Amino acid sequence: MKFKPLYDRVLVERLESESKTSGGIIIPDTVQEKPMKGVVIAVGNGTKSDKGDLIPLQVKIGDKILFGKWSGNEIKIDDRDYLVIKESDIMGIFL
Amino acid sequence: MKFKPLYDRVLVERLESESKTSGGIIIPDTVQEKPMKGVVIAVGNGTKSDKGDLIPLQVKIGDKILFGKWSGNEIKIDDRDYLVIKESDIMGIFL
Amino acid sequence: MKFKPLYDRVLVERLESESKTSGGIIIPDTVQEKPMKGVVIAVGNGTKSDKGDLIPLQVKIGDKILFGKWSGNEIKIDDRDYLVIKESDIMGIFL
Amino acid sequence: MKFKPLYDRVLVERLESESKTSGGIIIPDTVQEKPMKGVVIAVGNGTKSDKGDLIPLQVKIGDKILFGKWSGNEIKIDDRDYLVIKESDIMGIFL
Amino acid sequence: MKFKPLYDRVLVERLESESKTSGGIIIPDTVQEKPMKGVVIAVGNGTKSDKGDLIPLQVKIGDKILFGKWSGNEIKIDDRDYLVIKESDIMGIFL
Amino acid sequence: MKFKPLYDRVLVERLESESKTSGGIIIPDTVQEKPMKGVVIAVGNGTKSDKGDLIPLQVKIGDKILFGKWSGNEIKIDDRDYLVIKESDIMGIFL
Amino acid sequence: MKFKPLYDRVLVERLESESKTSGGIIIPDTVQEKPMKGVVIAVGNGTKSDKGDLIPLQVKIGDKILFGKWSGNEIKIDDRDYLVIKESDIMGIFL
Repeated sequence: MKFKPLYDRVLVERLESESKTSGGIIIPDTVQEKPMKGVVIAVGNGTKSDKGDLIPLQVKIGDKILFGKWSGNEIKIDDRDYLVIKESDIMGIFL
Repeated sequence: MKFKPLYDRVLVERLESESKTSGGIIIPDTVQEKPMKGVVIAVGNGTKSDKGDLIPLQVKIGDKILFGKWSGNEIKIDDRDYLVIKESDIMGIFL
Repeated sequence: MKFKPLYDRVLVERLESESKTSGGIIIPDTVQEKPMKGVVIAVGNGTKSDKGDLIPLQVKIGDKILFGKWSGNEIKIDDRDYLVIKESDIMGIFL
Repeated sequence: MKFKPLYDRVLVERLESESKTSGGIIIPDTVQEKPMKGVVIAVGNGTKSDKGDLIPLQVKIGDKILFGKWSGNEIKIDDRDYLVIKESDIMGIFL
Repeated sequence: MKFKPLYDRVLVERLESESKTSGGIIIPDTVQEKPMKGVVIAVGNGTKSDKGDLIPLQVKIGDKILFGKWSGNEIKIDDRDYLVIKESDIMGIFL
Repeated sequence: MKFKPLYDRVLVERLESESKTSGGIIIPDTVQEKPMKGVVIAVGNGTKSDKGDLIPLQVKIGDKILFGKWSGNEIKIDDRDYLVIKESDIMGIFL
Repeated sequence: MKFKPLYDRVLVERLESESKTSGGIIIPDTVQEKPMKGVVIAVGNGTKSDKGDLIPLQVKIGDKILFGKWSGNEIKIDDRDYLVIKESDIMGIFL
């Protein structure tokens, strides 16, 4: 099953962040409030302008992105967890 | 009786989601906070621009869509339950 | 006495909804939170654009419409009850 | 003394509404929450557009109008009570 | 010392309102919630449009105006009290 | 060290206001809620329009200005206190 | 690993502020509420206009900037701390 986000939305798969302090102690996810990393799985056709034109997104499939921990909506497709977020909630791309 | 949504609104019939944990226990709907799936039954003529033009919607009749659990207004037509939601509340389309 | 709504407003006469459960018990109106049906009695000349143009409404006199239960303002003309609502609060038209 | 409202404002004289129940009991004004009727006494030169043009108002002097009970500001000119309201708070005109 | 308001602001000197009931009892100012009268002392060069043009104001020096009791900021110049208010807070002009 | 404000921001040095009642009693600053006076030390290149043009500011270096007591952000450069405020928070210029 | 901010965002490395009172006492960071200094490490391609054009930013890599203490989101890249902030939250540039 495939999913096509609408307009300026992006389907994202979260990347597990390695969470160890310098002493090697693992910090559970709920303590971290830093932004999250993810990989773009699918992108919408673009932001809808006032005139109805679609302005293409800057992120593309495969981009490794950074986004706010609380951005977007969780969604499950074929038993895997994804996020649907708006491109405006994406802070940047890891090169 | 037929219903024509106005402008950027869409008439949606909810799809029952199968809600079983891996152990087979059924979770009642009110516990789930994930987005909902539905099928588009009717669409409006488009978003009204500042100049009065209608910008056609991207979803069309028959599309299987994902939308926020709390989006839209419930409506009953000929004893069946539907939702009227705005296209901007639709996250994407299942292909 | 006649009433001409201004701009994007519409004069509506509410339709009594038949409220019976399957067992025939009548539910008083105040319990229902579903949208309301009504008939359009008069319409304004259109939405005022930023440039001062009037963009004609899509609903017309006689349309049977659906709108939110709490939309608009109640008004009494010649001892009959009406609602004045904005077209943007109308969800759609029954065909 | 005369008063010229600015831009999209309108000077209105309230019409006393006859408030009797069918049994003839008079209801004091503060109980009624329905919209109010009034007569337009003076109008501004028009809504100021983004470009600085004035878009003429649709109401004119002498119009009998309907407006929200809590709209506008009370003002006293030559010992008479008036309201200054914005045209966007006027619901419609009685013909 | 002279003061030039910026853009759509206006320098206003308040007019003392005579506050007597019909029986001649004086009502202190803090009880009145009606709009205030004032005289325009200086005006800005105009509202700044989106494109950077200045749209001249409609009020001019010497105009006797009506404005909301709580509008603007009090300012003292050469030991006299003034108000700096935006033209959009002025309801109209007494002719 | 020099500081260049961005876009519509202005660097301001506060002017000490002489705060004596007619009887010569000094009122500490925290009691006064009137606007503040200051001198413009540096100005940004202009307000950014929707199209990306820069609209030059009306205030210039050396202007003695009036602004709201709580406007802007305090900043210390080379051990001196300044304020960074937006031009839209400036009420006017003393000539 | 490199990071490219999206649109009007900027990657910033905070500069440690020397916090000593005149008597030499060090004030811990959490007491200071003044704006922060930082160095621009990477910039986005520009603000997205309504028409989809990108309006280039005014800050560039290497600029020493001033920004609000609570602006932006903290992010860790290769074990170093950075901030991602929007250009509109930058008050100005030290020359």
